[in-house]
Amino acid sequence: MKIALAQLNYIIGHFEHNTGLMIDALAHAKSRGVDLVVFSELSVCGYPPRDLLEMDLFIDYCQEAVQQVAAHCQGVAAIVGAPSRNPESFGKRLLNSAFLINNGTVEGVYHKGLLPTYDVFDEYRYFEPATTFKTIPFRGKKIALTICEDLWNIEAPQLYRISPMDELMKDKPDLMINISASPFAWSHLADRHFTFSENARKYRLPLFVSNQMGGHTELLFDGRSAAYNPQGGMVGCIDSFAGGIKVFDLDEVTKSNLPATVLSLSESEINDIIFRALVFGIKEYFGKLGLKKAILGLSGGLDSALTLVLAAEALGPENCRAVLLPGPYSSEHSVADAEHLARNLGVLYHTISINKTVDALQQSLAPHFKGTQPGIAEENLQARARAVILMGLANKFGCVLLNTSNKSEAAVGYGTLYGDMCGGLAVIGDIYKTEAYSLARYINREREVIPANTINKPPSAELKPDQRDTDSLPPYEILDDILQKYIEKRMSATQIAASGHDPELVKKVLRMVNNNEYKRHQTPPILRVSKKAFGSGRKMPLVARFPE
Amino acid sequence: MKIALAQLNYIIGHFEHNTGLMIDALAHAKSRGVDLVVFSELSVCGYPPRDLLEMDLFIDYCQEAVQQVAAHCQGVAAIVGAPSRNPESFGKRLLNSAFLINNGTVEGVYHKGLLPTYDVFDEYRYFEPATTFKTIPFRGKKIALTICEDLWNIEAPQLYRISPMDELMKDKPDLMINISASPFAWSHLADRHFTFSENARKYRLPLFVSNQMGGHTELLFDGRSAAYNPQGGMVGCIDSFAGGIKVFDLDEVTKSNLPATVLSLSESEINDIIFRALVFGIKEYFGKLGLKKAILGLSGGLDSALTLVLAAEALGPENCRAVLLPGPYSSEHSVADAEHLARNLGVLYHTISINKTVDALQQSLAPHFKGTQPGIAEENLQARARAVILMGLANKFGCVLLNTSNKSEAAVGYGTLYGDMCGGLAVIGDIYKTEAYSLARYINREREVIPANTINKPPSAELKPDQRDTDSLPPYEILDDILQKYIEKRMSATQIAASGHDPELVKKVLRMVNNNEYKRHQTPPILRVSKKAFGSGRKMPLVARFPE
Repeated sequence: MKIALAQLNYIIGHFEHNTGLMIDALAHAKSRGVDLVVFSELSVCGYPPRDLLEMDLFIDYCQEAVQQVAAHCQGVAAIVGAPSRNPESFGKRLLNSAFLINNGTVEGVYHKGLLPTYDVFDEYRYFEPATTFKTIPFRGKKIALTICEDLWNIEAPQLYRISPMDELMKDKPDLMINISASPFAWSHLADRHFTFSENARKYRLPLFVSNQMGGHTELLFDGRSAAYNPQGGMVGCIDSFAGGIKVFDLDEVTKSNLPATVLSLSESEINDIIFRALVFGIKEYFGKLGLKKAILGLSGGLDSALTLVLAAEALGPENCRAVLLPGPYSSEHSVADAEHLARNLGVLYHTISINKTVDALQQSLAPHFKGTQPGIAEENLQARARAVILMGLANKFGCVLLNTSNKSEAAVGYGTLYGDMCGGLAVIGDIYKTEAYSLARYINREREVIPANTINKPPSAELKPDQRDTDSLPPYEILDDILQKYIEKRMSATQIAASGHDPELVKKVLRMVNNNEYKRHQTPPILRVSKKAFGSGRKMPLVARFPE
Repeated sequence: MKIALAQLNYIIGHFEHNTGLMIDALAHAKSRGVDLVVFSELSVCGYPPRDLLEMDLFIDYCQEAVQQVAAHCQGVAAIVGAPSRNPESFGKRLLNSAFLINNGTVEGVYHKGLLPTYDVFDEYRYFEPATTFKTIPFRGKKIALTICEDLWNIEAPQLYRISPMDELMKDKPDLMINISASPFAWSHLADRHFTFSENARKYRLPLFVSNQMGGHTELLFDGRSAAYNPQGGMVGCIDSFAGGIKVFDLDEVTKSNLPATVLSLSESEINDIIFRALVFGIKEYFGKLGLKKAILGLSGGLDSALTLVLAAEALGPENCRAVLLPGPYSSEHSVADAEHLARNLGVLYHTISINKTVDALQQSLAPHFKGTQPGIAEENLQARARAVILMGLANKFGCVLLNTSNKSEAAVGYGTLYGDMCGGLAVIGDIYKTEAYSLARYINREREVIPANTINKPPSAELKPDQRDTDSLPPYEILDDILQKYIEKRMSATQIAASGHDPELVKKVLRMVNNNEYKRHQTPPILRVSKKAFGSGRKMPLVARFPE
């Protein structure tokens, strides 16, 4: 039996696009003698549809899309993901379902049992979990069909009461198929590989996983659909962030004796996949909105340099516009470094001084500021003047302003709301400053794309004379370690201090993180590449006391 | 037996404050001969703690707080809400629990069975649902103790497989106690009253409900803790948005023969409760952040007028600062109406022209805008110049900028990002424009607080000559009806048109709503007074096609 994994790029709610892709894949697979094409979770509507699921019309369209795809399942069968209406008189209105379609009709249905509701996932918001599980017969074989999280309950402590695969095993299946919408995080790749490998090994069955590929605002899906043999060895996979279908022969996969492996990435491989993920994320955001052009403020510093490199790679240098916005405290090297980068990339750049605007603002405010010492208010005027000029150009020329804040800044609130925190998309908002340095060195591995001076000089916001980030913040190696332990690992101040940090500094940093939830509440969507990004996956109260 | 309902104002994560309030309430109740004091859901930590629940330390503090309260339960018993660790080896780490504490020790525990995970609720993100339910014995009576949602499964179609009360009835309880954290929405009050009344009636038992009171950023909790007799008649309740404890005699409640009633509010009562809710929301936001002063831009229009009236009521006129920011297209009556209102309220106001700043911006951008027609970009410069000046004053004087956008504008994206969409808190962002008029007339019921001209003149953003809202938008009576049907009732374009609207207009409005998700993603928290506010209760994809 030939099984094809279809790793396609759906657009949420764009049924014509999605069914079109699926119908093309079916035709292509049929021409290659494929018996069964496996599409990913909620493939007809794209994942995650969020509250669109609450609209009756949306569910109607999903059902119609399944029928449209079914009409093309002649001589080739398919597994399609779609929400379906809960036929019971209790529970959530919907089920997260997978349909096996053969000869134009639905021959089997499976409903998801384990509904991830943590981090960026909120499936129990919409779906009732299934509690009974049966294999689906297909051409003399029994398929143990599961949906994404259903296979993620194998390690203790188990997050769910039941394990759908344990139930399905009672039917003595011949193979496992899993349809997924598992988002990308660089440090999640090894977990995911282990989970699938371990399932195949545990149940001694070949496993075929079809994962969604595509960018959905902040959530990136890499795909990496794969087949595993019953020893847990990966027989083959589709590349990350690449669309396409891959055909496997069931017997060959079953008989393969490739051993189970552990996925372990080098620093350079990590940088490579993060670079590709961010470029993909930009491309997807613009592409799916039907937009082409990006604009950003280029300061001569590392963050905007990195953002511009990524944007130029994603959109083409001809679609990027860099604006140098020197102000009263900008250094000469900032302008020179920014120009140098723009020329290296072949990106159009303008220089617009903010001084005139800042002067006008200060004159207008002077009668009210009289007798006060210059401080944050005056510094913020500069950052906000830059934002207004950038947004003016963005509005005039139909560009999206890219936000250039990094994760360390976002964490401690080292940024101006309605100033440098503006933008339609935060490109490196899930990259700590130390990771940004590593990524910059990776980008420069063959030639100096980002000027060395941009990488080597001490970081500064340049909002007052001789300002340095280290005036307000600890060195980034220390800051980032504290942040990672607090944000990713949920360690307490005491635990972080015990890991080798000054207890007072730890408390100070944690307070900065907690006191700036209100700023992060208003930031643009942040391309998510880690397991814990700011945004929909981290829901903290704005008004609260935080334990120390 | 005397039962006291304690309707207290907790601060999320502020254990010292919360246990202090509870211990005071216990002492007071004891002095009044009370047998049992009932605190609300998750009372030790405040509701909703969100991802603070993911921190081990936070749970440790919750446990300690229960012990601290327990130490004061001598001669008086208490029911306390707190998260507890799940002792099972599977499922979520936590349970949402209620402890019956007597003689200084925990004598009974109940875990919540129904976990609301919709709209603003996300309890399955954190908690494992209980599946077995037992009554708790106390002084010869059997208490059917439940937590909030546990009582909300009485009408078909039932959202949950099980009904905890049905299970508890097998134990033949003598009374029902429910601890809640049920947020305010004006149109939800009748549902809530019905639900409690119906439970008492259905199970033929007296019911005591203790609900949380307090503002938690955008979520407002009105309390309205109450006791119902076995016919469903409400025997007594604590006022909305008021703290305190109320003592009931179990026998008297049981024997009361007040009939079940339907709660129905007049337009004036609705305006009254919305007015009180918004004032309370402002007061709570500032109070719990330890802030005092608000600033806002006063345009002479209805929205900023309404916001200022509410802020002055909440914070005192002496803590409010209004800024008139006339620009090139501001009319004379705008300035006059704004001054008139500020004087009516006794609020300090300044006038700062934006012309100098707008000129500077336009000069800086002129070389780049050359050959283009003035349009949205130029209009937005004005709105953003205002925001920068307001934020400058806010930063300088430690004020919070209040956002003045209404729900109709927020819905269709009729506002400038980083301009009039700025602010720390959106006061009337859950009030449609037609509701804003109604509220303004209510405020003026005895004397003209808001100048009549502000209410009567046609609304205008005044960003270009003779601009009117109706240049871009349908009349608000039509717009708001379409919006309400789409946003609150989830009706489709076809259904809305069939209810009596021009199909093309409906499609245009729905497209505006859908195309502006990206703007709403960056708005401040909006005080929630309806069942469906923009914010955490409405999760729409930013990049998607929406069904029409």
